[in-house]
Amino acid sequence: MNKIEHIGIAVSDLEAAGSLYEKLLNTTVYKIEEVVTEGVKTAFLQSGPNKIELLEASSADSPIAKFIAKKGEGIHHIAFEVDDIKAEMARLKGEGFVLLNDEPKPGADNKLVCFVHPKTAGGVLVELVQELVPNP
Amino acid sequence: MNKIEHIGIAVSDLEAAGSLYEKLLNTTVYKIEEVVTEGVKTAFLQSGPNKIELLEASSADSPIAKFIAKKGEGIHHIAFEVDDIKAEMARLKGEGFVLLNDEPKPGADNKLVCFVHPKTAGGVLVELVQELVPNP
Repeated sequence: MNKIEHIGIAVSDLEAAGSLYEKLLNTTVYKIEEVVTEGVKTAFLQSGPNKIELLEASSADSPIAKFIAKKGEGIHHIAFEVDDIKAEMARLKGEGFVLLNDEPKPGADNKLVCFVHPKTAGGVLVELVQELVPNP
Repeated sequence: MNKIEHIGIAVSDLEAAGSLYEKLLNTTVYKIEEVVTEGVKTAFLQSGPNKIELLEASSADSPIAKFIAKKGEGIHHIAFEVDDIKAEMARLKGEGFVLLNDEPKPGADNKLVCFVHPKTAGGVLVELVQELVPNP
């Protein structure tokens, strides 16, 4: 896996969290995007080669709404960049990891993504991401 | 802040977790280090420009023991690399963030570190790290 592509952080108020993380990281939110299929609104900030993805639930049954109800705001997942998501999914299955989707699916920020079940990954929700086309 | 220097993950068994993350990241643990002052044993894995730091409590009153007792295994903190930790600490104080130490202190992996109180950072334990000398 090439690098930490991003860290996903569950927040209850995307605008307030955006301002807070702008101060924390001394940078600006460069993109806001809604991923309707996942029930989330996202805001992205950059830290060198890595990104911070703030996630606000956009529907009551969003996984982010459930996460915040159970655990409060905080780190939700780590995403690792891979070159070939299908090959990486096959490798992880072979190692005994349970994947949350059998096929790569579209994610925020123009990516193909797949999640690994946290019960098989030491309590950590791990996402694999493969870039579809280079960002401008 | 230059990049995500590492993600800290609280684990109950460093050896077992080391093997698991080696399979997950398709790489090997390259360093094991005990930080006696923090009550932790750490293992490091690399993912491109970023590191994963696995943290096992080495004493019953370690912050990691308390974290696992309360929340279970999982992501414990995000560490950002900075060039000048004292300047960054002053900037964050000025922005209203509460720091957990007034002066930089020695951390694992030959770093000066400072933690930001998660209550002032959206529920996320943020660490600043400045490298003391380049790693070989």
